[in-house]
Amino acid sequence: MSELIERLGEGLPEDGVLTDPDVLRTYAHDMAGFCPAGAPAAVVLPRTVEEVQHTLRTAHAFRVPVVPQGARTGLSGAANAIDGCLVLSLVRMNRILEINPVDRVAVVEPGVVNATLSRAVNEQGLFYPPDPSSWEECTIGGNIGTASGGLCCVKYGVTAEYVLGLDVVLADGRLLSTGRRTAKGVAGYDLTRLFVGSEGSLGVVVRATLALKAEPPQQLALAAEFPSTDAACDAVCRIMEAGHTPALLELMDTTTVRAVNDMTKMGLPESTQALLLAAFDTPEPSGPLRAVGELCEAAGASQVVPAENAAESELLLQARRSALVALDQVKGTTMIDDVCVPRSRLAEMLRGTAAIAEKHGLTIGVCAHAGDGNTHPTVCFDASDEDESRRAHASFDEIMALGLELGGTITGEHGVGVLKKAWLAEELGPLALGLHRGIKQVFDPEGILNPGKVF
Amino acid sequence: MSELIERLGEGLPEDGVLTDPDVLRTYAHDMAGFCPAGAPAAVVLPRTVEEVQHTLRTAHAFRVPVVPQGARTGLSGAANAIDGCLVLSLVRMNRILEINPVDRVAVVEPGVVNATLSRAVNEQGLFYPPDPSSWEECTIGGNIGTASGGLCCVKYGVTAEYVLGLDVVLADGRLLSTGRRTAKGVAGYDLTRLFVGSEGSLGVVVRATLALKAEPPQQLALAAEFPSTDAACDAVCRIMEAGHTPALLELMDTTTVRAVNDMTKMGLPESTQALLLAAFDTPEPSGPLRAVGELCEAAGASQVVPAENAAESELLLQARRSALVALDQVKGTTMIDDVCVPRSRLAEMLRGTAAIAEKHGLTIGVCAHAGDGNTHPTVCFDASDEDESRRAHASFDEIMALGLELGGTITGEHGVGVLKKAWLAEELGPLALGLHRGIKQVFDPEGILNPGKVF
Repeated sequence: MSELIERLGEGLPEDGVLTDPDVLRTYAHDMAGFCPAGAPAAVVLPRTVEEVQHTLRTAHAFRVPVVPQGARTGLSGAANAIDGCLVLSLVRMNRILEINPVDRVAVVEPGVVNATLSRAVNEQGLFYPPDPSSWEECTIGGNIGTASGGLCCVKYGVTAEYVLGLDVVLADGRLLSTGRRTAKGVAGYDLTRLFVGSEGSLGVVVRATLALKAEPPQQLALAAEFPSTDAACDAVCRIMEAGHTPALLELMDTTTVRAVNDMTKMGLPESTQALLLAAFDTPEPSGPLRAVGELCEAAGASQVVPAENAAESELLLQARRSALVALDQVKGTTMIDDVCVPRSRLAEMLRGTAAIAEKHGLTIGVCAHAGDGNTHPTVCFDASDEDESRRAHASFDEIMALGLELGGTITGEHGVGVLKKAWLAEELGPLALGLHRGIKQVFDPEGILNPGKVF
Repeated sequence: MSELIERLGEGLPEDGVLTDPDVLRTYAHDMAGFCPAGAPAAVVLPRTVEEVQHTLRTAHAFRVPVVPQGARTGLSGAANAIDGCLVLSLVRMNRILEINPVDRVAVVEPGVVNATLSRAVNEQGLFYPPDPSSWEECTIGGNIGTASGGLCCVKYGVTAEYVLGLDVVLADGRLLSTGRRTAKGVAGYDLTRLFVGSEGSLGVVVRATLALKAEPPQQLALAAEFPSTDAACDAVCRIMEAGHTPALLELMDTTTVRAVNDMTKMGLPESTQALLLAAFDTPEPSGPLRAVGELCEAAGASQVVPAENAAESELLLQARRSALVALDQVKGTTMIDDVCVPRSRLAEMLRGTAAIAEKHGLTIGVCAHAGDGNTHPTVCFDASDEDESRRAHASFDEIMALGLELGGTITGEHGVGVLKKAWLAEELGPLALGLHRGIKQVFDPEGILNPGKVF
């Protein structure tokens, strides 16, 4: 047993430090394909803040890299192991410590699963909006690390907007409290927000105070079929320009619709080029739904089908939620991009993506949080075909280049990890990147926290 | 003419550098009383980004402190001059560069007045929520620097939530772009948010991309009279617990009500101990207003008076908006506190404030963004009375101590400036404060940007 493992054991129970190589391998990577993942020296599974502090203190003393990890549902390799690192899995710290309906806050440990929290607050008439596709598995800690989004964002924003305060264990094991549990507060620099989306590179979140909203009425959705993605994007622009605030506004192109049908047998309309889903969760959704339907028709929709009831609405959402898994089955392997453009440029983004697919002879299915301009062009390919793999990678990069050209960002909600590290430098430029390095140096001078990720 | 002024003149027009001591004096301080203000060496009034860069490059070369300034309506002395500094007033950079209803963004220069922007976006059916009391004068740059709030926050949040991206001139004159104009984006650390609320200590904002919302229907308000602040705070808790989302939820204690009546002759009810204003801006406000009225009655309201129409609602808001000015006239001088507590602790905060007032034999009027738990206990005193002044200062500090004790923050929306510097250290503790210093060092290694403010 190495000295490192021995020292870890001094502050952790026996089942809190795993070293079996077969077990370690299962903790090596998240759900992003094509990202390098090393072999950890150990996996640490703390149950308390003190155990996390002990782990960090030990790693700091040994100058061993630490990779914080949640449910490993991430899509950018941010949670991938590094050779010889400690994987610090927070999944056992999964207590909901408080739900307070008057203050509208929840206090949670990082390993709480998103859906568990969502359901627990629902029971008290409250609403925690962030809803990544992986919400049944992903953890709040992971959501905070990657600042993840979901379907709700067009109305309710991303995870970042719900994080009021954090307890964070720093690289050397000291415990920092940031932020507040009050509705407002401007005392000092916004350290809370600095940790959100930093992918574990600045500290390890061990507790979060989250803002909640009052639970809205159940949503009611409609589906609109369009003869072209251009027409569907035009509808998106008209809907937003007219001042509507849908609870979601999602787009699936024909490739995605077919993939979902193949997997789920849902019978979505395959003859259309783009399917738009819009939903409202206001007390009287039928008014805005009707108006949105008319705007879709004005933009050229061939058919507008309002859901009859909440159950039908939920079915439509399930179709959208299953899109990425369905696309995965088209050719066995996918690379999922996450480019967000100003919504006025959405049509150009989809047209450009189609051109890239055609140029490379590839299938690229696009589903999009259209109301946010956040597209997930998903390159479907056969990984055993070397040439197709090469073309898939090339198209993946070209899609990001196109996003930047249109005034967008290389990542709307999935994060940078290792997958997009080179592209982050492209997006930020040397001045901003230098400031990132400076900040990293302040929080983690020895560079042990998730090194080699983000930048 | 000093070498510094000469060098400034090389990159600025003649009217862009002021040195007349009488004029300089008028730029020496913001609206916070009791904060030291020095004598600037010059006031610089740039019209372009290049002129700001020239100013910073020059200041950097001469190691001269720079104090960025908007309309000087701040309440914490953050914009106060330092002896020998350059005051960098951004008020001439006041162009609205773009309003885009599809992307729901505005791009503005920092000197644009809040009300000017609000009205301009209203004309296009859009809504820029942040509405500090000084909205007719204060600038967007100042709002960003102090992360200011307003009446809207209980539903719409603070300025920070509307800043998508920034152009910032750094201490050495280099131009940094942060953030995005897309609805979402998680590329790298959130530098944008780091600048918001940093009170000009990390860089000078020269352009901002702001998120807009669709314009909501006009609000409808009600006023409820309570026999005690306890009962009013109980009503606030009941309203929030019941899941309502009012567009504002404001409280005025009897001292404030009397002061407003004295100034405006509005005839608000003086016999009650606390007046609560609630408003909704939903399509059908009468339903929730009725429910809120009933909750107020259940909490002990002696009377609930719904506004008959939008004009009556607006009058009620004007009463609330005039509170601080009215309290200023009670005894000639005020110290305005800005303590925010979890709303479940609001009653304790008001009770404790009353006890502090009684102990010191002082008049302390309280108005509060009650829905946020954000109170503005306003100490009214005669500055020519030395003993009363001493007691006023003591009570001001005790109010902050009470706020911290109740799990709150020393500043909900006014910022730290010089007024609350010592208290910030108290709230943050040495670890967080050390990280603040480290971040400051990364952005401004020579320490020329607004030194001596915040921390």
